[in-house]
Formats: sequence, structure tokens, C-alpha cells
Amino acid sequence: MLQKVVILSTGDELTTGKIADTNAQWLADRCFTLGLDVVAVLMVGDYPDRITWVWERAFELADLVICTGGLGPTSDDLTTEIVAKVLGVGLRFDEPSADKIRALFERIGRTMPENNLRQAQFPEPAVILENPLGTAPGYRVSCEREVPRADGPGRVRAPRHLVVMPGVPREMKPMFDDHVVPWLRELSASDTVLAIHTFQTFGMSESGLDEEVNKVIRPDEARVGFRASFPMISVKLLVRDVAERADARLEELSARLRTALGPVIFGEGDTSMEAATGAALIGRGAKVAVAESCSGGLIGHRITEVPGCSAYFLADYVTYSNAAKVDVLGVRRETLDEFGAVSEETAREMAEGARRRSGATVAVATTGVAGPDGGSEKTPVGTVCFALSADGVLVSRHHQLWGTRDWVKLFTSQIALDWVRRWALGLDVVESGFRR
Amino acid sequence: MLQKVVILSTGDELTTGKIADTNAQWLADRCFTLGLDVVAVLMVGDYPDRITWVWERAFELADLVICTGGLGPTSDDLTTEIVAKVLGVGLRFDEPSADKIRALFERIGRTMPENNLRQAQFPEPAVILENPLGTAPGYRVSCEREVPRADGPGRVRAPRHLVVMPGVPREMKPMFDDHVVPWLRELSASDTVLAIHTFQTFGMSESGLDEEVNKVIRPDEARVGFRASFPMISVKLLVRDVAERADARLEELSARLRTALGPVIFGEGDTSMEAATGAALIGRGAKVAVAESCSGGLIGHRITEVPGCSAYFLADYVTYSNAAKVDVLGVRRETLDEFGAVSEETAREMAEGARRRSGATVAVATTGVAGPDGGSEKTPVGTVCFALSADGVLVSRHHQLWGTRDWVKLFTSQIALDWVRRWALGLDVVESGFRR
Repeated sequence: MLQKVVILSTGDELTTGKIADTNAQWLADRCFTLGLDVVAVLMVGDYPDRITWVWERAFELADLVICTGGLGPTSDDLTTEIVAKVLGVGLRFDEPSADKIRALFERIGRTMPENNLRQAQFPEPAVILENPLGTAPGYRVSCEREVPRADGPGRVRAPRHLVVMPGVPREMKPMFDDHVVPWLRELSASDTVLAIHTFQTFGMSESGLDEEVNKVIRPDEARVGFRASFPMISVKLLVRDVAERADARLEELSARLRTALGPVIFGEGDTSMEAATGAALIGRGAKVAVAESCSGGLIGHRITEVPGCSAYFLADYVTYSNAAKVDVLGVRRETLDEFGAVSEETAREMAEGARRRSGATVAVATTGVAGPDGGSEKTPVGTVCFALSADGVLVSRHHQLWGTRDWVKLFTSQIALDWVRRWALGLDVVESGFRR
Repeated sequence: MLQKVVILSTGDELTTGKIADTNAQWLADRCFTLGLDVVAVLMVGDYPDRITWVWERAFELADLVICTGGLGPTSDDLTTEIVAKVLGVGLRFDEPSADKIRALFERIGRTMPENNLRQAQFPEPAVILENPLGTAPGYRVSCEREVPRADGPGRVRAPRHLVVMPGVPREMKPMFDDHVVPWLRELSASDTVLAIHTFQTFGMSESGLDEEVNKVIRPDEARVGFRASFPMISVKLLVRDVAERADARLEELSARLRTALGPVIFGEGDTSMEAATGAALIGRGAKVAVAESCSGGLIGHRITEVPGCSAYFLADYVTYSNAAKVDVLGVRRETLDEFGAVSEETAREMAEGARRRSGATVAVATTGVAGPDGGSEKTPVGTVCFALSADGVLVSRHHQLWGTRDWVKLFTSQIALDWVRRWALGLDVVESGFRR
């Protein structure tokens, strides 16, 4: 039964701070999801003695070592050679892998440097993991090793497993999910499976969510994981059970969570607020326009991160100056004079103006003080006014947001997108927001 | 003479993939800049046996260990206890630190949990590093340890140093720069200093920059480091010399680099393209407006990331639909019919319309195909047209960009901002871009 994991990353770009090790985080998250205990994450640069050291230590700590990097074609790519040495096995040349590498170069019309054939070399007992997206296949090895006893002095022979994958994230991730996860399930030698469902939420704090979840799901029914990635929080439900029962149990618990959290859940699975908003607009057959002041174009930017958004997105009027608010959106001078640019009154006229001007079904508007300067007693930094206009609908609300300039902007864009999503789904709009 | 470093990070949130270890990357970058060799980055969760294991291993590998995390007030914050145990020393309670913690709680009007006093405990020989931004001070220790010989079998006593800092990045970073860097300079026991200057560039590839730099700076004159952070690349010059000479030599080399790279350098020190563009506009006393299509609001978003941008930013017209281009910017129907929305002709009318409408001194416009769909033979995915309008100036150009949708958008915004910056500085505008 597999339990303890060490994640190894190799590459000078990691130890010189050139890039962050996002692979390690991704793999640690996957391991957590699979119920595995990551004992350590170890990183070293491209030096033979350091890579050897770290592999030997990794086998002391864990029964599974997952390594990324060092599979490239150049002389500083040392992983395979060192793995073979540490395992005390030879290297074998895999002709089918070599053919695939040659074919890949032919397809893109380039001459293959001879060096690339190093990527068709594997430790003798390796099982090869195909890489449809690059030249470096991965591999896995299961063996026995002499390691220090966990429960006292002396040494003992114990089963050890290792996985080696390329360091390029877009090659590594599908390789792990497609080839490693099923093998790990087998290794775990369990007749149960882990069923997982993820909810994306906005509008409650992590502790608030935790409380609500605890009201409807008992700890023995499912593991629940929270991941905050401002301004959203994802909630993961994990159910371990025999295959025949796991999915049904997960679906039953998911239904409870949907009822408990309601519109705070804006999406399920791997999705974003802008994608959820887009899907809701398509569902309603509506077209959207935006009027922004303090958020400065971020709402439009996020809407247009979604491919195909031209089906529902018409225009975003970023009226930063008061003159532009008057000229483009028809905000009245008197409104600005009487209530100020940061007011619900101005936001309402902005939303109405954007809808009228663009011919959109729905328009959302924001105006506020992103900071760090520009606050006043009446409108301190973080004050943001929102309005939404649609046929027969004109609502507005202000929020006192917090954090740095970029947080206030991001927060503002999230609330505005959520308003549009809620409107498109026929939900209460102004209840969206965030409780501190 | 200090040379080898191990960076340690502790925390369950790292080994379960909840967050990425950005501290390790930041510290690795700082160490690289200081000329130190980071042998390994090691991460473990909050378990006594694992933290002990990793500290013992770290002392085998390096003469300096830099650790973040595990200094909180709760029972799973174990770093200090374990450091004392590994060093074989006792703990001492530091009354001045305790007073500061009490005062901090008083200031925010909260009762201090007794637990927080754990943060006033230090290994006996520790030198305390103040933390003006939080309750957990850091500390450093210098000692001698018995470690395996590097050059053969057996063990030897050798000097070892360690630094422990809180895991919160905004507390850790100033602590490192203010208290640790000067100490490391002393430890290096060298009469030389390292002088550093950073240039931010856009418009050349890393290998292109490398070539240009090599033409004017010999390897023995300075170390040169490149950091690509799409779409910009920073170039760092590092000069080690005696204090009286280092700055003058650095300035002489910097001047050569300025001449060699010219307008490809958009800023010096820690800056962004949007900040450089803003500074250039202020310098010229100009106001800017933007007209966007494919970039969807990203240009406005980036301009408004800079505090105080309301001094020079008037409006951004994100005219995603053709109707909006005609209505808001006065693009002629005939232009759209004849040349298409993605054409230099349309971009020029967008820029002129944005300038006219807003009363800005200068306006920039973008229209293109961000992908992944929507490409045609004439305008494949990645085609983006740019135009800039100012008094007596109307220029345009199209680029064939590449990459995913978000890359094309980011790229587009970078070129547009660079056009405005170049215009404000009186430089050639359309030469900006990116050579693959």
C-alpha cells in the first residue's frame, strides 16, 4: 500500500530563482487529492553529485519518488543516467521511442540533432510513459532497495517506486493524469476509488464556507478541501468507496452542497467566473456591455479571456475621466456635481448609458476609488459603486472593499461579472459580494 | 567565505499543494544576485521528524541555511524548537520581543493569546532580526558543526550559519533585504561589494539580447543575468569590485548597454511597461486614450494598474463589435466592408476616433484575431493591427503574433503601450514589436 511520496524537481532555473516550481505545487495538489502523503519536495540544480544525493535521500523518505526535469537532449540533462546509477542498473536504448522522436522532427521539417536520441534511453527495468506532446517520454520503475529501518536502527529491503516525467508543464500534466494516476490506483491495491467533484465559489469566506459545508456533510461522509485563489475559493469533495458506489455517493453529497451554498457556487469543475458569466449569457441569449471607471478595463479584459465571447460581448466603455462619462455614456453633469463620480447615482447612469449606446440586453457599471490615493472621508479607498441595467431592471449598490489597488480592481471585476451572471440566471443580483 | 546555501521552507500548505512556494524562488533569485550557490531547495510539512531530518541534511550540504515558515504562534509552528534541538542548545525568552508583541496587539485593540509569547522564544545563541510588520521576529545563528568531509570519508568540524524568517512574504522580504543581506556581505568577509543594475527590455529575444550585450561587455567585466517574464526580459548587470570602484564601473558598463540597446530598454530598476509609459506621458505633459478590439480592455487595465494614472489617462473604448466601432469611434462602414475589422485601415480610424472623441493628445488602437478560432487565410490567428494618432502623426503596422489567446492579448497590450511610450519620448514608434 503506497503512502509516502517525495517530489523531486531538477534544474538550474529553479535554484537560481529564474522560475518558480509550479510543477511541484501541481503534483502536491494531485497527491493530496489521491490521498497520498507528500513527505518532502526537494529541488536541486543540474549537478551530478547533487542529483545523486537527492535521489538517495528521497528513497529514504518515501516509497514513491515523483521526479520532473532533466530529460532534455542536452548534456546538462542528467536524470536518466543518474537514476540508473542510483538503482544500480544499466541503460537500454528503446528503438520505438527513437522512431517517434525522429518522426516528430520530420513532421516539423527540422533535422534532428543526434543528441535527441539520448531521450530514447531508459533505465533497464523502466516502463515507458508516452509523451504525445514532446520528444521526451517519461518512465516508471518499481524495485526493491535497501533503506534505513523506519522503526529502529539497521537497514531493510523495501519496495520502492519512481516516476520520471519531463519538466515542461503542458507535457507533464497529461502524462501524470493519463499514465501515472491509473498506475498509482493499482499500486494502492485497493478495491476502492476516489471520486472528486470541485465547486467554484464567490461571496463567502473560507471559514464561512467551512461552516456551511459542515452543516450538511459529516466528516466521515467525505473529505473536503478548500483552495483560496483570490477572489474565488474552490471547494473539493472527495469520496473514497468501491467503484459501484463512489459516484452515486459523490453526486448525493454534491446535491446537498448545491442546495446549501446556492448562488455562491458560480461553477463546477475547472472553470472561471468569466466563463460562467459567458455561459449564463449564452443560455439567456443576451448580449452584454460594460461601463468601467476604477476597474479600468479589467472587466472587459476578463470577459474577452473566454474564446467565443464575441457571441455575447459588444463593448466596454472605460470612462476614466468625468468628461468621458458625460460624453460617451450620457452621465449628467448635475449627477456628477451633486453625488460625485463615485456614487450609486453615477453608476446607474453609466449602466443605462452603456446599455442604450451599445444596444446590449444587459449592462454593468463600476465606479470607485482603487487607491492608494484619492480617498476622502465620504468615499475612502476601496469604496466601489456598482449598477446593472436591463429591460425593466435598474439596481445599484456600493461596497467597501479592501486591499491593494490591484486587489480592489480584481474584486470589483469579480462582483461585476457575478452580477451579470446572476442576472442572466434570474437570481438576486445585488446580494453578490463578499463578506469579510 | 560563504558559498553554498540551502533554502528550507516548512508548512503543510506547501506539501499539500495549497500554495506555491514563492518565497523559495524569491530567495533563490536574491542568492543568485549575491553570488551565492543554492545547492538545494527543501520543503517539508509541519512534522517534527521531517523538520529535524531536513535541517540535519541541510547542514551537510551547505554552510548557510535560510529557512522560512514555522514561526507562527500555534502548536504546529515547530521551527524554533527543532532548530534548538538540532543545534544542541536551549531556548531563551526575549523580554523586549515579548513587549513588542504585546504592544502590537494593544495597537490593534485585541487581546493577545498567551500562545503568541512563543514567538519571543529563540535558540540561545540567536541574534534577533526585528519584524516591524508582524509578530514573529526572525533570527540568525552562527555555530560550528560536525559534518561529513566534502573531500573524503570521515567527519570534520566546520562553521555553519542559519537564518530563520517568517513565511509571510511581505514580512520576510524586507527582513531579508534589511537585516540579512548586510550580514551576508560581512560573512563573505570580502573587501569587495556587488553592485547591481537592472534594465527592463521589450522587443528582442533573450538570445538576441545576449548577442548585443556580448558585443559591448566582456565576460570578465561583469556577470550578466537574463530573466524572461513574457513579454518582457530583464537584463541584470552585476559588478564585483572594491566599494570605491564598483559603482563607477557599473555606471560605465550601464552606459554602454544603454547605447547598445537603445529604445529596447523601456525602464531601469524594478518597473513595468505601463509605469514607463505613464512616466513618459507625464514627462511630455500628454493625455492618452485607447481604442481596443482584440485586446478587450487589457491595455486600459494595465494603464490603470499604475497609481495616479488619472493624471494622463482619459478613456478606453473597447469596441468589440463592428457596430460599436462605427458608433463610438466613427469608423466608416465602408472601411470595415472593404478592408475588414482586422486591418490597418480600421485601426487608423479607431485611433483617430478615440483621440477626437476623448480630446487626448495621443491615442493608440488595436484590432486583431486573438484566437483560438476566428482566423482566416488573410488574417490568421495572431494577426494584430496597431495604429497611433497624435497631432500631425498617424502611423500603423500589423504584426503576426503567436501563442495562446491570453499570450496574443498580452503581447498586443505590450506593443500598444510601447508605441505610446516611444511616441511620448520622441522615438520611432512602429519599430517596436518583437522579433521571434
